[in-house]
Amino acid sequence: MRVAILAHEQFPDRAKTAVGVLRYGDQKVVAVLDRATAGTTVGDHLPDVGADDVPIVESIADAPDFDALLIGIAPIGGGFDESWRSDVRAAIERGADVVSGLHYFLAEDEEFAALAADHGVELRDVRNPPEDLTVAEGIVRDLDVEVILTVGTDCSTGKMTATLELVEAARAAGLNAGFVPTGQTGIMIEGSGIPIDRTISDFTNGAVERLIRERADEHDYLFVEGQGSIVHPAYSTVTCGILHGAQPDHLVLCHEADREVIHGYESYPVTDPSKLADLYVALAEPVAPTELLGGSLNTYGLDADEAADAIAEYGGSIGAPAVDPVRDGAGAIVEQLVPDR
Amino acid sequence: MRVAILAHEQFPDRAKTAVGVLRYGDQKVVAVLDRATAGTTVGDHLPDVGADDVPIVESIADAPDFDALLIGIAPIGGGFDESWRSDVRAAIERGADVVSGLHYFLAEDEEFAALAADHGVELRDVRNPPEDLTVAEGIVRDLDVEVILTVGTDCSTGKMTATLELVEAARAAGLNAGFVPTGQTGIMIEGSGIPIDRTISDFTNGAVERLIRERADEHDYLFVEGQGSIVHPAYSTVTCGILHGAQPDHLVLCHEADREVIHGYESYPVTDPSKLADLYVALAEPVAPTELLGGSLNTYGLDADEAADAIAEYGGSIGAPAVDPVRDGAGAIVEQLVPDR
Repeated sequence: MRVAILAHEQFPDRAKTAVGVLRYGDQKVVAVLDRATAGTTVGDHLPDVGADDVPIVESIADAPDFDALLIGIAPIGGGFDESWRSDVRAAIERGADVVSGLHYFLAEDEEFAALAADHGVELRDVRNPPEDLTVAEGIVRDLDVEVILTVGTDCSTGKMTATLELVEAARAAGLNAGFVPTGQTGIMIEGSGIPIDRTISDFTNGAVERLIRERADEHDYLFVEGQGSIVHPAYSTVTCGILHGAQPDHLVLCHEADREVIHGYESYPVTDPSKLADLYVALAEPVAPTELLGGSLNTYGLDADEAADAIAEYGGSIGAPAVDPVRDGAGAIVEQLVPDR
Repeated sequence: MRVAILAHEQFPDRAKTAVGVLRYGDQKVVAVLDRATAGTTVGDHLPDVGADDVPIVESIADAPDFDALLIGIAPIGGGFDESWRSDVRAAIERGADVVSGLHYFLAEDEEFAALAADHGVELRDVRNPPEDLTVAEGIVRDLDVEVILTVGTDCSTGKMTATLELVEAARAAGLNAGFVPTGQTGIMIEGSGIPIDRTISDFTNGAVERLIRERADEHDYLFVEGQGSIVHPAYSTVTCGILHGAQPDHLVLCHEADREVIHGYESYPVTDPSKLADLYVALAEPVAPTELLGGSLNTYGLDADEAADAIAEYGGSIGAPAVDPVRDGAGAIVEQLVPDR
């Protein structure tokens, strides 16, 4: 699938979805829309994503043929910026689907809905979960697949990136590995998934179970994108549903170096990662026993020596192999899964 | 408020909501609708709820004046039984509100919606959470109120009943105590609340926080109705949201005597209550430290001697005062909260 990605005035540093799709997606990116950096190429900003020659353009009119427009930025609050309207309109008029992770649903926008109907294209709001979710049956352990879940000490500790790097490392090691996205960015990268934080709490475990069940036949290993933290004052609900819905065989604990308080909840200290790993294992055990496979440390902002020290210390504290997957990949964790020849 | 309660063909044994309102509600019940037992009185079936002379009638036409009709039964699946339609219609035509905990929303029924508009009455579907829920702020511990939460080893272990008995015992001990309902039956008894299992997972902690915040000024002690179990394969999400949203100072662990497997999930054993109590405390601690105040044991089906033995054994195993609140009330738990004179 050929895609254009809208990232006006935010590419690349504040365009998490756009960069994620460029780095990890299977789609062919034909253009990035950013009026602030138009005229340059992706390679000028991100030399390491294999998209050096992809043009950054001012508007849809300047983009080569594509099948879908992805909204590649997620402003605080999740609203729709009216300055994007002409591009969305032009994409629909060129016969392209539009995929969005915004809280504002494009399919409920009267102009877009009418235009999409006229042109026979789909407006896909990935934050909108399926309407036929049900309670979990508790059957993941009966499936013929090994499940690895990323969990965290907080939100925004790099769980999605760690999960995607684990998948890449597993495939590089010859394993048949799949990615299970649970958040809007992951869903846009993978092209499928359920935004678990938008599910009704009674069906949250069931939604995760469905994601695993749908992919279990195709893969030997499934790497599930975690969310939040099991001791987050606001988001622990989501985390618990993923932990018990996914019934993971293994956990990878994601942490950010030097983070000491919960992001946005500064009166709450981050729990010691070693203690928290034990808590995740203890909470999982009565539903489906699990074990800590490794740790992922986000060392963004540290120099190479500091990062190496921090990673070694982190691995020592949790008693499992640790990596910064952005610096080193996740091979050191995945190699524990590779069967002996 | 004067209420009539619809409980056709299920009163009293399969009419949990009707019985709960009769036993614990502040409303004045003027009639129960049950075509199977019409002509008898509530006292003929339930001599211990203080409603001996309340008539059981065949239909709305036979009921004295009332302000609201409560749907007091919850069939499996939560559907609306068409044999109730004439009673709901007649109640609206008599100018009464209708309160329902069904999955089927009366307000979305075309006939009822039109009729309710004509007669200026409200159709209140208590399983429908407010639309303006938000993420938790994590501020319950800043409020001037002591929070007690019932938690369980499984669903249907008597958490709602235990919570209501705790409130009664607290009031009898002179404490200013309030009830915080989180499920449809509790909401119908109290007349307010949020069905936590229907909230979007991102807002579940926040919904519980809101319930506490709204009641904190009026009471010194709030008793929160728990749901599910923190190690339930399907419903743990809901439980986790309540645990971290309510930030309880104290927990009361509810268990059913002799239950060995999770109801409806028979391949999952019930976790040892003592071990599970430790897990609840450990999971709460990083968000808001708590402690086990007591245990509630459902001994329905045991004789008095067996029940006394089971309660003593349960209390010993969890290391806290235990009661069967239906047999003995919850005074033995609540007395620990009463300040020294």
